[in-house]
Amino acid sequence: MVFFTEITFIEADSLFNQAIADSIHLTNIALSKSALEIEALKKAVADSTFRTNNLWMMIASALVFIMHLGFATLESGLTRAKNTTNVLFKNTVIPGIGLLTFALCGFGLMYPGFAVGTSMDFFGFSGFGLHEPINGNTRQYNIGYTYWTDFLFQGMFAATCATIVSGAVAERIKLNTFLIFSVVFVALVYPIIGSWKWGGGWLNTIGFHDFAGSTLVHSVGGWAALAGVILVGPRLGKYNSSSRITPITGHSMTSAVIGTFMLWLGWYGFNGGSVLSADPGAVSLVLVTTTLAAAAGGVTASLTIYVLSKKYDLSMVLNGILSGLVAITAGADLMNPLDAVLIGSIAGILVVFSVILFDKLKLDDPVGALSVHLVCGIWGTVAVGIFGSKAGIDQVFTQLTGIFAAGVAAFAMSAVIFGTLKKIMGLRIQEDDELMGLDYKEHGMEAYANFNLK
Amino acid sequence: MVFFTEITFIEADSLFNQAIADSIHLTNIALSKSALEIEALKKAVADSTFRTNNLWMMIASALVFIMHLGFATLESGLTRAKNTTNVLFKNTVIPGIGLLTFALCGFGLMYPGFAVGTSMDFFGFSGFGLHEPINGNTRQYNIGYTYWTDFLFQGMFAATCATIVSGAVAERIKLNTFLIFSVVFVALVYPIIGSWKWGGGWLNTIGFHDFAGSTLVHSVGGWAALAGVILVGPRLGKYNSSSRITPITGHSMTSAVIGTFMLWLGWYGFNGGSVLSADPGAVSLVLVTTTLAAAAGGVTASLTIYVLSKKYDLSMVLNGILSGLVAITAGADLMNPLDAVLIGSIAGILVVFSVILFDKLKLDDPVGALSVHLVCGIWGTVAVGIFGSKAGIDQVFTQLTGIFAAGVAAFAMSAVIFGTLKKIMGLRIQEDDELMGLDYKEHGMEAYANFNLK
Amino acid sequence: MVFFTEITFIEADSLFNQAIADSIHLTNIALSKSALEIEALKKAVADSTFRTNNLWMMIASALVFIMHLGFATLESGLTRAKNTTNVLFKNTVIPGIGLLTFALCGFGLMYPGFAVGTSMDFFGFSGFGLHEPINGNTRQYNIGYTYWTDFLFQGMFAATCATIVSGAVAERIKLNTFLIFSVVFVALVYPIIGSWKWGGGWLNTIGFHDFAGSTLVHSVGGWAALAGVILVGPRLGKYNSSSRITPITGHSMTSAVIGTFMLWLGWYGFNGGSVLSADPGAVSLVLVTTTLAAAAGGVTASLTIYVLSKKYDLSMVLNGILSGLVAITAGADLMNPLDAVLIGSIAGILVVFSVILFDKLKLDDPVGALSVHLVCGIWGTVAVGIFGSKAGIDQVFTQLTGIFAAGVAAFAMSAVIFGTLKKIMGLRIQEDDELMGLDYKEHGMEAYANFNLK
Repeated sequence: MVFFTEITFIEADSLFNQAIADSIHLTNIALSKSALEIEALKKAVADSTFRTNNLWMMIASALVFIMHLGFATLESGLTRAKNTTNVLFKNTVIPGIGLLTFALCGFGLMYPGFAVGTSMDFFGFSGFGLHEPINGNTRQYNIGYTYWTDFLFQGMFAATCATIVSGAVAERIKLNTFLIFSVVFVALVYPIIGSWKWGGGWLNTIGFHDFAGSTLVHSVGGWAALAGVILVGPRLGKYNSSSRITPITGHSMTSAVIGTFMLWLGWYGFNGGSVLSADPGAVSLVLVTTTLAAAAGGVTASLTIYVLSKKYDLSMVLNGILSGLVAITAGADLMNPLDAVLIGSIAGILVVFSVILFDKLKLDDPVGALSVHLVCGIWGTVAVGIFGSKAGIDQVFTQLTGIFAAGVAAFAMSAVIFGTLKKIMGLRIQEDDELMGLDYKEHGMEAYANFNLK
Repeated sequence: MVFFTEITFIEADSLFNQAIADSIHLTNIALSKSALEIEALKKAVADSTFRTNNLWMMIASALVFIMHLGFATLESGLTRAKNTTNVLFKNTVIPGIGLLTFALCGFGLMYPGFAVGTSMDFFGFSGFGLHEPINGNTRQYNIGYTYWTDFLFQGMFAATCATIVSGAVAERIKLNTFLIFSVVFVALVYPIIGSWKWGGGWLNTIGFHDFAGSTLVHSVGGWAALAGVILVGPRLGKYNSSSRITPITGHSMTSAVIGTFMLWLGWYGFNGGSVLSADPGAVSLVLVTTTLAAAAGGVTASLTIYVLSKKYDLSMVLNGILSGLVAITAGADLMNPLDAVLIGSIAGILVVFSVILFDKLKLDDPVGALSVHLVCGIWGTVAVGIFGSKAGIDQVFTQLTGIFAAGVAAFAMSAVIFGTLKKIMGLRIQEDDELMGLDYKEHGMEAYANFNLK
Repeated sequence: MVFFTEITFIEADSLFNQAIADSIHLTNIALSKSALEIEALKKAVADSTFRTNNLWMMIASALVFIMHLGFATLESGLTRAKNTTNVLFKNTVIPGIGLLTFALCGFGLMYPGFAVGTSMDFFGFSGFGLHEPINGNTRQYNIGYTYWTDFLFQGMFAATCATIVSGAVAERIKLNTFLIFSVVFVALVYPIIGSWKWGGGWLNTIGFHDFAGSTLVHSVGGWAALAGVILVGPRLGKYNSSSRITPITGHSMTSAVIGTFMLWLGWYGFNGGSVLSADPGAVSLVLVTTTLAAAAGGVTASLTIYVLSKKYDLSMVLNGILSGLVAITAGADLMNPLDAVLIGSIAGILVVFSVILFDKLKLDDPVGALSVHLVCGIWGTVAVGIFGSKAGIDQVFTQLTGIFAAGVAAFAMSAVIFGTLKKIMGLRIQEDDELMGLDYKEHGMEAYANFNLK
């Protein structure tokens, strides 16, 4: 273990022998001390670096946490005031439910500890609850973060995935039904699909690249939202028998803007934390590509809707920013600034046409969650094969494999859950309750009861 | 100071002597250089670790700062729009007043530098203003943070304590009276009681455990709020002569939700920063216990109120989350995840019954501050003796001693201050001003003057 | 390169010779190994420190980013609901435009790489786009942050400068005109003036001190705002032919308070990040001076307006806080706590009289941007010569030189841009559109369309 060579005593006249031996002995002692000091320093430096890494991962977790406020205000802002308490309630209680559920079993399903090299793994489970691994150095889980930080970061991620669904089915779904869906979704659907890549499963083995979850978080959430939207049906009055679409605008653009900024801010943790350490070059590049994609998405969405309507539709800008963020998420670590601008720009254009298309298909999505998370989640995942350091036709096919597999699984499982709940307890509130607003029926309180000053 | 043994010259024939002596001499030089380098490295590693520690403490301070926005929006959201400017004003100006007051004398009272081993210390003062301690390395205060960071973190804490009071007495207290109360409270009451534990005083000596202030911040603020609520009386129309309670709902659940998320986010600094370094294992465990308690509190409060009323009362969920956060604060460093879930769950149930009880007692608390901060602050402090690594009957009694001592002191001092101010300048605004709203009387402006679009 | 002395072989009898030689040889090997280890450790410690520095700079960038939400909510809160979508749109899309423009050419103009020692440089350009400097260690740009982090931090700064203008010209400027102004301003005006100091140009050479931009960001933005306010004229109904001023109050003090807190929070990154590393003493001192100046500005503005009007005007408190923040920005690194309190206190008084004065001059500034950013930006820059470690009459003159030069340049260039755009496409929307609100004309949507519950 000591790094220096033991100096051996050689045969010689005793006096000089002794002198040399003493000299060697004392030198050895000094070198040995020095070696121990150096070993201790190596450990101390590694600990210091670990401390910084773990600090970033904890801060990234807090940033992902604040995305839940982003979803709460974005979704409530883009829906009507009579349903505001309901939308806020869902987005406040889902992080709580999601974190508890993920602690109970999601974490164990998502990180089952697949053996390296075993391919095509679809399912594994490392146990219920949180159990800090104990060995020599109790708490150091890996070079980037502790066990607790790992749970915190992953738990915050899991809860965002359920939240994506809530916006798409807002203003008409039964609250109890949705809460049960969320529990099952975070407990099973999200972590099992996620384990295929991030848990070391078969998608990881085949080289599928999804840096921070354009597919595993956003399109998975988007597919579940699509299943919900189809099964719950459009809001009353949105699509009449004629081909006329009645726009239903939100109640507060202020809330929607607060929500978008909180999501953008939180994405610095979502993508930046996905480096899994505070590596200076890697994290800062990811933050730059994330930023430029968001900026580009916002700008191209503004211009696209302006060209189409001669109006600067603010909600399109917000969705443009979010679409850029969703799209860069799969390859934020692989792109240079220009790639990021292009990926975000295309996402900003895509989202506008996608919103129009879903309305033509009479798929009623009050907040544009399908266009942002599903469509741009797919786009961003494909873009990994088109732009950046992994671009190539083989990668495109690998990406499509991952998109397809995750999509089929997420849509099918969500449809089964929503379908089962529809039979057992119903998906949709009664017509008069929908007209009155969910706040009255489900919560017995208006969001702005004493808003009028008199 | 040098770490290697000086190799001594031994008697020998001159030539070989000289050879050995030269060898030893040169080896000594090399070892000496190496030793100096190693000493320098030790210092550099310690500095690097200190840099990370201090960074976390600065960020934690910023997180505690944002709790003030949390209080501002939570309290204004849960009160009526005619008093919104007033509530916002108080919560905006109190951090400023609090920080200046704490800089002037609170900091010196809270950290008087009790000598270690001297027990039963109740009071000390290390002087007015901020004076960076000067010695060899001027700025390094201790291993976790600089002197300036220390003040920043503690100053942000102090200001939160005063803010707790503001919500409970909202919608009827005179602004000038409340501002003077706040100055005295942050200057004297909070720091003197706080010094008993965190300043190294008698509560610390007897083994009272209050990690981040369930008692020293939350219940102390709660006791002051109780004194205020009793002395100022309920809002007009809340409790009529019959036993009927008229609920007075808030004006914006959006504001209240923003506030709750900001408080939850800020709590990561409040509890996580109370580790007083960026220790990876300790801080990340604290963040996990804090998160799980908040989640559990929100969920059990939702279920409790749903069982009682068949409605999902959003304001109860918000208070449930906050009650979980307050309760875990005393022992966030001692609990495992299951303990944290249990402590938060009980807090979420407690807060619902407590809100109902205070209303029965005709103690009018518009935002539920007494239930959240006083009741769950006490619960969390007791829980340190029931759950986690310090559990034990002796600890329960020690905890109760601290709760009782801090409670008596906080309530008595607050009652004296409020009582004195009542005599001198009055606590309560005139009846017609209360009906009109404090915004008109005190501020000459409505919060939403040009809200109507035409 | 090796740090130890090579021990030379000396002539001696062969046996002992060999023994000594072997001893020396093996000692040399051990020392050589040790030396290599020590070199590696030095690098590792430097990397660890760099990691922490870069982490802080990335977090500071995120904090500056959130200032854009601050501007969005502050400015929309202080203006009427009929223009809310418009104000929010500008403040949401400007960060995006600003970041893309700064990436394209602003960054190259601001940091042209002036040779050290060449004085009186007014202009330079290091090229379009982002190009990570490549050498031995590819990504490490300097001791404080990577190339990417540098761009991120500076890009976030640049965008804030354009945003300052938007508030002053709100509620009557044409959106397309303003967007084009913003592009040119961030592409040319801000970076060229900024390069005089931060790019190593002539203001840096003469010793002008502007730590984080009281002049280079705030008063430059303020001068541009002044040019805009003069050229676009006051809002309809603000100044009638008589000398009577009709106050036009905002639509949501809740938004304005959220905005102020977000700006205060973001300022911790704005000033704290301007240390350009995570230096514990320097950053924490800056955070304390920033905090105390904000607190003092809020308190003195409250008292000043209370003395003048017997009402606690909340919007004045908010502007007081911001004025304290703007004023401390130039010398946050040079002041002790008392200096900071004095600088902030004076700013808080100044801002109140300034708001009144601009109204007397019929310069209509809906949000007080001129008083906060221009007046207090100048005050803070002058204060560097009055308070703190650089105080002195020479420094006052140097500061005035910088203020004057930046002011003339910013005002002249902005007036030319606004003037040119006025001729080409017009600055101001039509009278009936202004009365109807910009939201309808420019965006085709109300901010609170479905706010009424029925």
